[in-house]
Amino acid sequence: MNFISDNQAGAHPAVLAAISDAAIGLAEGYGEDALTAAAESAVRDVFGTDCAVFFVTTGTAANALALSALCPPWGAIYCHEGAHIQNDENTAVELFTGGARMVGIAGDGGKPDVALMRSHMEIATVHGVHNAKPGAISLSNVSESGTVYCPEEVAAYRQLADEFRLNLHMDGARFANAVVASGVCPADLTWRAGVDCLSFGLTKNGGIATEAVVMFNHALAQDFAYRRKRAGHLWSKQRFLAAQWLALLENDLWLDNARHANSMAAELAVGFTAHDAIQLPWPTDANEIFPVIPEALREQLRAAGLVFYDWPQAPDMTRFVTHFGTAPAEIAHALQAIAATQ
Amino acid sequence: MNFISDNQAGAHPAVLAAISDAAIGLAEGYGEDALTAAAESAVRDVFGTDCAVFFVTTGTAANALALSALCPPWGAIYCHEGAHIQNDENTAVELFTGGARMVGIAGDGGKPDVALMRSHMEIATVHGVHNAKPGAISLSNVSESGTVYCPEEVAAYRQLADEFRLNLHMDGARFANAVVASGVCPADLTWRAGVDCLSFGLTKNGGIATEAVVMFNHALAQDFAYRRKRAGHLWSKQRFLAAQWLALLENDLWLDNARHANSMAAELAVGFTAHDAIQLPWPTDANEIFPVIPEALREQLRAAGLVFYDWPQAPDMTRFVTHFGTAPAEIAHALQAIAATQ
Amino acid sequence: MNFISDNQAGAHPAVLAAISDAAIGLAEGYGEDALTAAAESAVRDVFGTDCAVFFVTTGTAANALALSALCPPWGAIYCHEGAHIQNDENTAVELFTGGARMVGIAGDGGKPDVALMRSHMEIATVHGVHNAKPGAISLSNVSESGTVYCPEEVAAYRQLADEFRLNLHMDGARFANAVVASGVCPADLTWRAGVDCLSFGLTKNGGIATEAVVMFNHALAQDFAYRRKRAGHLWSKQRFLAAQWLALLENDLWLDNARHANSMAAELAVGFTAHDAIQLPWPTDANEIFPVIPEALREQLRAAGLVFYDWPQAPDMTRFVTHFGTAPAEIAHALQAIAATQ
Amino acid sequence: MNFISDNQAGAHPAVLAAISDAAIGLAEGYGEDALTAAAESAVRDVFGTDCAVFFVTTGTAANALALSALCPPWGAIYCHEGAHIQNDENTAVELFTGGARMVGIAGDGGKPDVALMRSHMEIATVHGVHNAKPGAISLSNVSESGTVYCPEEVAAYRQLADEFRLNLHMDGARFANAVVASGVCPADLTWRAGVDCLSFGLTKNGGIATEAVVMFNHALAQDFAYRRKRAGHLWSKQRFLAAQWLALLENDLWLDNARHANSMAAELAVGFTAHDAIQLPWPTDANEIFPVIPEALREQLRAAGLVFYDWPQAPDMTRFVTHFGTAPAEIAHALQAIAATQ
Repeated sequence: MNFISDNQAGAHPAVLAAISDAAIGLAEGYGEDALTAAAESAVRDVFGTDCAVFFVTTGTAANALALSALCPPWGAIYCHEGAHIQNDENTAVELFTGGARMVGIAGDGGKPDVALMRSHMEIATVHGVHNAKPGAISLSNVSESGTVYCPEEVAAYRQLADEFRLNLHMDGARFANAVVASGVCPADLTWRAGVDCLSFGLTKNGGIATEAVVMFNHALAQDFAYRRKRAGHLWSKQRFLAAQWLALLENDLWLDNARHANSMAAELAVGFTAHDAIQLPWPTDANEIFPVIPEALREQLRAAGLVFYDWPQAPDMTRFVTHFGTAPAEIAHALQAIAATQ
Repeated sequence: MNFISDNQAGAHPAVLAAISDAAIGLAEGYGEDALTAAAESAVRDVFGTDCAVFFVTTGTAANALALSALCPPWGAIYCHEGAHIQNDENTAVELFTGGARMVGIAGDGGKPDVALMRSHMEIATVHGVHNAKPGAISLSNVSESGTVYCPEEVAAYRQLADEFRLNLHMDGARFANAVVASGVCPADLTWRAGVDCLSFGLTKNGGIATEAVVMFNHALAQDFAYRRKRAGHLWSKQRFLAAQWLALLENDLWLDNARHANSMAAELAVGFTAHDAIQLPWPTDANEIFPVIPEALREQLRAAGLVFYDWPQAPDMTRFVTHFGTAPAEIAHALQAIAATQ
Repeated sequence: MNFISDNQAGAHPAVLAAISDAAIGLAEGYGEDALTAAAESAVRDVFGTDCAVFFVTTGTAANALALSALCPPWGAIYCHEGAHIQNDENTAVELFTGGARMVGIAGDGGKPDVALMRSHMEIATVHGVHNAKPGAISLSNVSESGTVYCPEEVAAYRQLADEFRLNLHMDGARFANAVVASGVCPADLTWRAGVDCLSFGLTKNGGIATEAVVMFNHALAQDFAYRRKRAGHLWSKQRFLAAQWLALLENDLWLDNARHANSMAAELAVGFTAHDAIQLPWPTDANEIFPVIPEALREQLRAAGLVFYDWPQAPDMTRFVTHFGTAPAEIAHALQAIAATQ
Repeated sequence: MNFISDNQAGAHPAVLAAISDAAIGLAEGYGEDALTAAAESAVRDVFGTDCAVFFVTTGTAANALALSALCPPWGAIYCHEGAHIQNDENTAVELFTGGARMVGIAGDGGKPDVALMRSHMEIATVHGVHNAKPGAISLSNVSESGTVYCPEEVAAYRQLADEFRLNLHMDGARFANAVVASGVCPADLTWRAGVDCLSFGLTKNGGIATEAVVMFNHALAQDFAYRRKRAGHLWSKQRFLAAQWLALLENDLWLDNARHANSMAAELAVGFTAHDAIQLPWPTDANEIFPVIPEALREQLRAAGLVFYDWPQAPDMTRFVTHFGTAPAEIAHALQAIAATQ
């Protein structure tokens, strides 16, 4: 009953099979192969538009390379104060942007407050060259608090971006879970809501290193291939990245995996909600639950075999994550353990 | 009969099996897993010393990250004018070093001339802050011309490095082939000859993304984990990098693969040597051959099904590369085709 | 009665005379001249220790270059949330450090809270490579709120720096005012209190471009001359920077200038304190006053000829700055104007 | 009789007077003052076009900041192999561009060979993301060999720039000397010949720190003020930079100074030409002479009081530089000394 992280899961059998199949015979190197072309096309089909697709290795690479195209070296990038790019990816953004500034914005449920963000932009704009120039907004969908943005929420940031002539980035490390949770199509959640660029991650969804930068704004995609190459993120045997994408996108396996993870989390959340001593500070939109559990109770749960993070955001907060491989029996056992502490 | 590049080969079955095995169950993320520890240990066993080992994804990442630890942002990196880091990895070195300068040095057979290198260092040293400060030497073993350095040759650069207080890097994208070709042990070819840091690559040797930075000089390894992380080269599911290493190092499979590739090349080289109209400008030490073939003859060979690069270094020069998967029958057919043009 | 900023003042006659004197005859370029040697020596005399001295052009250059030597590219720099390096120098720190992260810490009177700073460092340390590594602390003395640190206060940050193995920087854009205000010698306020590096600025004190990086920690000074050169901050006619230093340090002119500015501010502060409707949120330690003045009253003062900034830190806050050239008559007129609004 | 460098000269009296005048009274900081506006306008008048003008402190800053706007981080900058930006400005270009690559091109008389430059661009273009992308051409006028480009020569590089969609930079550290020598107006030598951006330097011409980036291509000027600020090259008391410009441009003092320096060099060159044992490898277009003088003769000249550089470009080559302050009597004495060795 390990609920530490969806990146502790292994890989989906379909992904492994695709990698093995891709290993047969020779193929052009450095992304000039047929599998890469097919996988890029498959991603375009997901979004129903002619976006530019660049496969990379990690979410950190996807985010930082994407933002380097969206924000100048003297620019400010506005994100939630708890965002992964701000707290968990070292100074990757600074490295790849050439020194842009991260500005963390407070906000409920992992979503940066729009009015507060605007006030930061106004101050910076007035201050001219003396301050970092507003450059980009980055949203995580699913957010670091496990909540999901609907298209209307995304559009509010787009309006702000238009007002200050910024670019809008979405960190979609758990994009599949957001699509399933929001019930809208990938296009509505991204480019139709004004997203310029998506970091699209399927590593947590059954891949082994399955990330892509998806550029809806073609002007921003110019020379992006150079950015990827000089960062060491263009594989010589790129077909092994492409194969993972083809396996997960085929027959919407990525959405099935996410649907499973989300439903496992929903079931588990019921157990927390039912418990008198446990609070859920916000809804469980996707595959992450952040119950506030008193210390003594946490110890009981751990003694019963539940494995989970203490989450530093608030006192007694914890995090439970489900994934494509979470077994219904694990959830059942966890629910029993929780109920037993009542 | 495709001899374009060893990075067009797929992956060795043992690597694929190891990846599939690694996919089972949960594991700690970001390199905290048992497979990573075991693979790092296995690399240390190869060199018989307590080196620091960092798995990364591509040769470009290995080289540029390694050099960022060996050379300051205002430093000069001396390498052969035809080196891969100079000509084929965009400006990765400049990105990760924060702006160091590449200095290409001429030299026979892909090896930079020691005296010429020294004169560059002397001029730069005299010029003080006005010029890039001598910072590092980088050798490729196997070189970009397919030749192999013996320990004594490496030691000559080490002497230069000591004289100017530089660090010595080895680009070992085909290190396995160099070990087999030189007939000395990995330790003798690296740290015992004065190498501070090796980019150890097995991607061309049967892996899918199987590169490592091996730091023999522990002072240079300090904070290297931060460098890797901020470059987006720390995988969340790092076990899938480690598994490849364990598969290839086990029972010296990496050396068997290299021995096979080298012997295939040696056989093919015999055919070129025997041909009156074809010249080999230097010995075929490892798995790359650079025959000089007149244009009409190149067309005949291509018509006969041989696939190979025209190599820009000299008129009529070509490159043929063999690999772990090159079949003896391919060589036999190629030799027949070559002989038929006599 | 212009109290906008001490950088709106011109230059002291002694500085102008020194520049004119320096213009006669030939001199070695790029800092190899006799005036530069003399000025570096004069700075060392100020601190009574064998520090390394590097003249540069602007405070931004001094701060960002200094911090680039004190903090690695993947490091975090802790400063007050209102610090000049954080709010008024664009992304200079990020540029010269190669991407380090600024962490603004709240605190009263322009001084970052020590306990809060420690908690940030602890979280970052626990998070390892995933977060920016604690790298340096930067204090402004005089602070951005016009307050002055005494040696004991500085030492508290030094203790923190030792605990986390960081370097300690002091932004001394108004260092002269701090020395006069604190009544201790420059050595006690810097290296004896644990400061590794001081940005020592006299531009606001009567110079035209009179800044220096003073490295008390010699290990950090290594290769700093390369940093300055590649940033374009080594003048060919460096004697014109040195001449300004010699003029201002001779016979402690720099301290006289600061003493004058501080006393003018003290006199003006009396007028604010005496006014029923005006609050001073913290003591006026040096040459900057931050009175909180209701809007209607601000308009009256402006109508009476007083020129000053509205300060964004708090509602109705303003800033008044005096300098070496502030005339006693100006203060007298300002006091009359203030009293007239009572 | 010191002919080491024009940066060893002091400053012109008109410059000193202007600085002293500018010191009186208060002025807006950070370039918002009236003198800066007037000086920018005066520079625009020189070129007869609405260019964007940015004053900076050193030639290195001007060149590296300019090139950062003209070439992306993954780009290649083509210049003569002896260019100042390549050999004498450390890695400033790499720092400010974020890692662009310098490519030195051979060529007679300090001018890079056009055909050779094209071949480098062609190879890089074919190699795609694997190589640095052709980004900018940089010419020095006056060149590092003291020769001067005429507009037709500049236009040939412009044609190449158009063909590969590059930007064209001119390093005008001695631009005044080039204007006088070529006999054409500043506009014809720059934007009318296709130059996008000029580093316009008057430091060697009688200033103390008198450099400007002049952007003829307005698209490239976008956000340049941010580049300057974050590099620490925006002075708080910017009027002291502007004053120098106004003094030197008024009544064409800059051209008078250059005319004097050029004519002094021309007179001195006659003495070298007349000497049987001394060769001049190329014409003395401006204020620099590069005589090839046998060692014994060099010693005689030095014994006679002549001070000059040995120039590393060729055996026995030397460099003599004249400037605005070179006295006719110095030339007369030098000519006598040279003749005496015949």
